[in-house]
Amino acid sequence: MSQILDRINKPNDIKNIEPKYYERLAGEIRRFLINKVSKSGGHFASNLGVIELTMALHLHLDFPKDKLIWDVGHQAYAHKLLTGRKEGFNSLRRYNGMAGFPKMEESDCDAFNVGHSSTSISVALGYARARDINNENYKVYAVIGDGALSGGMAFEALNNLARLKSNLVVVLNDNKMSISENVGGMANYLGKIRTAEKYFTLKTRIKRAIRKIPYGGKFIVERISRSKNSIKRLVIPGMLFEDMGLTYIGPIDGHDINQLMYAFKSASHAKGPVIVHVVTRKGKGYKLAEKNPTKYHGIDSNASRAEKDKNNGENVDYTTAFANKLIDIAKDNEKVVAVSAAMLSGTGLNKFGALYPKRLFDVGIAEEHAVTFAAGMAAGGLTPVVAIYSTFFQRAYDQILHDICISKHHVVLAIDRAGIVGPDGDTHQGIYDTAFLRTIPNLTLMAPKNHRELDAMLEYAINEYNGPIAIRYPKGKVYTGLEEYQAPIEHGKAEILYEEKEIMLVAFGSMNTVAYEVREMLKADGHRVSLVNLRFATHIDFDTLKDLSVKHRLLVVLEENVYTGGIGQEVMARMHQDRINIECMSVALPDKFIEHGQREFLLKKYGLDTESVYRRIKDVMDK
Amino acid sequence: MSQILDRINKPNDIKNIEPKYYERLAGEIRRFLINKVSKSGGHFASNLGVIELTMALHLHLDFPKDKLIWDVGHQAYAHKLLTGRKEGFNSLRRYNGMAGFPKMEESDCDAFNVGHSSTSISVALGYARARDINNENYKVYAVIGDGALSGGMAFEALNNLARLKSNLVVVLNDNKMSISENVGGMANYLGKIRTAEKYFTLKTRIKRAIRKIPYGGKFIVERISRSKNSIKRLVIPGMLFEDMGLTYIGPIDGHDINQLMYAFKSASHAKGPVIVHVVTRKGKGYKLAEKNPTKYHGIDSNASRAEKDKNNGENVDYTTAFANKLIDIAKDNEKVVAVSAAMLSGTGLNKFGALYPKRLFDVGIAEEHAVTFAAGMAAGGLTPVVAIYSTFFQRAYDQILHDICISKHHVVLAIDRAGIVGPDGDTHQGIYDTAFLRTIPNLTLMAPKNHRELDAMLEYAINEYNGPIAIRYPKGKVYTGLEEYQAPIEHGKAEILYEEKEIMLVAFGSMNTVAYEVREMLKADGHRVSLVNLRFATHIDFDTLKDLSVKHRLLVVLEENVYTGGIGQEVMARMHQDRINIECMSVALPDKFIEHGQREFLLKKYGLDTESVYRRIKDVMDK
Repeated sequence: MSQILDRINKPNDIKNIEPKYYERLAGEIRRFLINKVSKSGGHFASNLGVIELTMALHLHLDFPKDKLIWDVGHQAYAHKLLTGRKEGFNSLRRYNGMAGFPKMEESDCDAFNVGHSSTSISVALGYARARDINNENYKVYAVIGDGALSGGMAFEALNNLARLKSNLVVVLNDNKMSISENVGGMANYLGKIRTAEKYFTLKTRIKRAIRKIPYGGKFIVERISRSKNSIKRLVIPGMLFEDMGLTYIGPIDGHDINQLMYAFKSASHAKGPVIVHVVTRKGKGYKLAEKNPTKYHGIDSNASRAEKDKNNGENVDYTTAFANKLIDIAKDNEKVVAVSAAMLSGTGLNKFGALYPKRLFDVGIAEEHAVTFAAGMAAGGLTPVVAIYSTFFQRAYDQILHDICISKHHVVLAIDRAGIVGPDGDTHQGIYDTAFLRTIPNLTLMAPKNHRELDAMLEYAINEYNGPIAIRYPKGKVYTGLEEYQAPIEHGKAEILYEEKEIMLVAFGSMNTVAYEVREMLKADGHRVSLVNLRFATHIDFDTLKDLSVKHRLLVVLEENVYTGGIGQEVMARMHQDRINIECMSVALPDKFIEHGQREFLLKKYGLDTESVYRRIKDVMDK
Repeated sequence: MSQILDRINKPNDIKNIEPKYYERLAGEIRRFLINKVSKSGGHFASNLGVIELTMALHLHLDFPKDKLIWDVGHQAYAHKLLTGRKEGFNSLRRYNGMAGFPKMEESDCDAFNVGHSSTSISVALGYARARDINNENYKVYAVIGDGALSGGMAFEALNNLARLKSNLVVVLNDNKMSISENVGGMANYLGKIRTAEKYFTLKTRIKRAIRKIPYGGKFIVERISRSKNSIKRLVIPGMLFEDMGLTYIGPIDGHDINQLMYAFKSASHAKGPVIVHVVTRKGKGYKLAEKNPTKYHGIDSNASRAEKDKNNGENVDYTTAFANKLIDIAKDNEKVVAVSAAMLSGTGLNKFGALYPKRLFDVGIAEEHAVTFAAGMAAGGLTPVVAIYSTFFQRAYDQILHDICISKHHVVLAIDRAGIVGPDGDTHQGIYDTAFLRTIPNLTLMAPKNHRELDAMLEYAINEYNGPIAIRYPKGKVYTGLEEYQAPIEHGKAEILYEEKEIMLVAFGSMNTVAYEVREMLKADGHRVSLVNLRFATHIDFDTLKDLSVKHRLLVVLEENVYTGGIGQEVMARMHQDRINIECMSVALPDKFIEHGQREFLLKKYGLDTESVYRRIKDVMDK
């Protein structure tokens, strides 16, 4: 049977599809995505949830003239499909292939590059003002999930939107979830709106009743219905938005294309900003994902699943290792509490929460609050561990500096996905944390060489140290080599693994694995190679480095982080300042945004794999 | 006449004052603060506005057992006065003197260190959870202004507060202003609550009327009055907070101590989180400040006012110079728009707004939104200039990286108050921006040597360059020396001011002034000194530096920024890596939080003044 989807090969093609086929097309898109994503890996539940919504947006908007801004952007697969990128799904999230997020470089129908949460309303407002000032004429739509709405900057934008009164539409995609279950006051509020549907028909009766109140009743009714222009004004739902000065339309069934199109048409006729509240179901059409959208938030490719199955024995990933050790420590230390920003499963904290429900706090997509909330708990005598991905800690730079470090509160930052993360690409690489955290006084930053050392560092950070301290660890399986080396963790002290002469490798965290392998290769060539596990990226152990350097010809600093602001730079500067005449080499990531692709591939591409490092060192030694 | 204030010498002393004297005491505190602050300088209007509120809090709470968290903290003068720090006002904001913000080191009645906005609810929630988990028993109060409530993280915290349902009280100090006039949807909403006061008495009548509606009326009333426990439930005001799950009490006259105490007593009996909405008048009791609270937000000391009057001729400050030049450029370039985060007067943009009201956007205390909103406008074809203090740009690290720099949007960041700011102290020093911005790929960071170069750099950033670019400039008067040097701005190109040999000074921005003076002193001693105006802190001009270095014995890098992640470190690392054998010295701020004190004093203390730099260089040259 020929497919409706075959008729969609470029932007706006969907407008030629007869309405009677909409439902069939939605089904085809759903099957297409299930098929492709289960092969390639990628975001799953969120994409299945917005198929009808995306279709309605594409029927309503004119691409690329109109601007559609996706929040987070992991739900834009149907959008990509409807804008002529069907072929791209064969290379989804692979190097040189189609990105998993909107990319202006990929299509002029992608109005903004995105990956982090809660930015879309700000961007849309920017577009709308630019349009008005430039006397242009196009529609601006933002699509934001209820989870992303818990991020503070979305609220800042709503607040500003209400003031500027620009013509634009915010589609609130309410699937009652952020990545894990959505939490907090806004979720309560949206929940109330949803269940308030039954009151709608009461609207006029309420008005009539209130108007009859003597002295002021009429005034109240007028106040309530002040925004006469709003298309579908309801007394109870949307009061929050209306009170802020935004027109509210909803709730709308997000899987009913006709209802959606009617809502968009109404919204586009309104003057000023409109919120269209759309209720969708994450994972719609794929039973397993509907039932467990958190599990099916993103899925791995067939290949990497097979890989996982192969060694699901001893080698857990760093996330699991962290979570297990934290549970272990929390057993004896009742002061330990854990904080997550809508990433219970991603950070492994769901296990902690099952055991210690009262000591786990999932604050929603709200990294800023997460960090300052932890600082408050520390001030109150607890020891909070805040587990957030490296890339999302960027949101909390000021809070780490201002709320934790100025007053030296004992908060432990667990920096997951530090380093190259791979398929999620440039918005998600965790390659800046070492550099930006090193700029903050009073903060200690560590990284372990292997699984056992992660345990030791957690123990040290929670039970021994007293002050702001962070531990970074990468995506993927723990390293279990070098386990015979277990020097106790001392603040600012490196661990000498091998002490010889000639070449001196200084490795931070994940790069110990590479350094060890490089050392083996160099040894086979007859070189004598020392290996220092640096452990601390702040309070660098220059005593040890300087003592050793006199015996060596070449010093190589290895870190999985951008070069500028990193460890290599500090080590070389110090060597120069102290007039220590040793040749230095920095192995670090270049100062650029790093595209999507497999982690191993990208590490190799940027010279952080064993072979590349070995080659560079050989070139120096042979010259 | 003896003063009531004389009887207050330590925490809780106010509880011994007879209620009939409350008003008199408020008057005495007001006069005390007007008297002291006009001598010493400091925050003014905000402190005069919360005197009765602070008194009521001190009558209600037990210090230091109970925890009172001030948001921003510039309004804590009366709190300091009531906790035995009367003497401190003689040294307010001076080095080694009393801080202008709460400081845990200063008093155990200061529950948290603060300076930036919108953190108090997060901190209070942290304290409340710690209290509950530790089975302790104390009250937790946060005081947050309506301006601070526009900051996203305050909303994140409210959202989380609604979920955790901890016992704590958020006092919303609504003075209808942030630092300049409060703006946006939340302000609209609060305005509506305030004017809704007249409906209060209608409450029961409304309920009765709605209940009469057939089919559902009773249900609605039940829903509306669900939180039966709330003490002073009103139908219309506070709906937003109530809908989020918070109990709302208000609005309360913030200058009526009895009404305030009654509200606090009610709030403390409630279960779960309570919002007490207090309406105050900024600058209360000082007519000039009541009329113009923005002008009287903070005032300078008598001494610095006299200084200002003396040279209010040609030497404007950098803020004014920036604003004037921006106006000038905007005249011919209609794409230029300006963005401020509640700092129109502080950044000089009020003048821009007077001329181009439609091209100026004050987004409220919302630095994150400010930056991403600008990115959206850039994507839409405008050239936005975002003017924010260095210390507040910390809030937008992720937005600069993720929303501006990944896609290379042409946004100009104008970083005011870069470097030591002085009396506001550790939370406000603008000494991290160079380091944290340098970690972000695709971003260009410049700083001018003098007034004329600021103009040239603005011209370059707006009209010539096309991409993310930032200009930092310090607090205080513009430098007008070295005006004969006007090499055109070229990307990544330094400007050689003097080329000799022996000593090579490389200065960034404000440090050109010092470098010039140091050079004069060294010359007088017979040294031959080159001076390079670096201009760019990213894309450092190593070609020039390396060419020159071979002719010199000592290279000195001067920057007004923390050392780690700064320019000196990169220069030394590069020299070492390239095996250039020149002795290097870094003149930079130490990696620590820098206390309050006068700017000149602190620069001297940390060795960034002419004399100190000269001494250090002489020591090296003489050895």
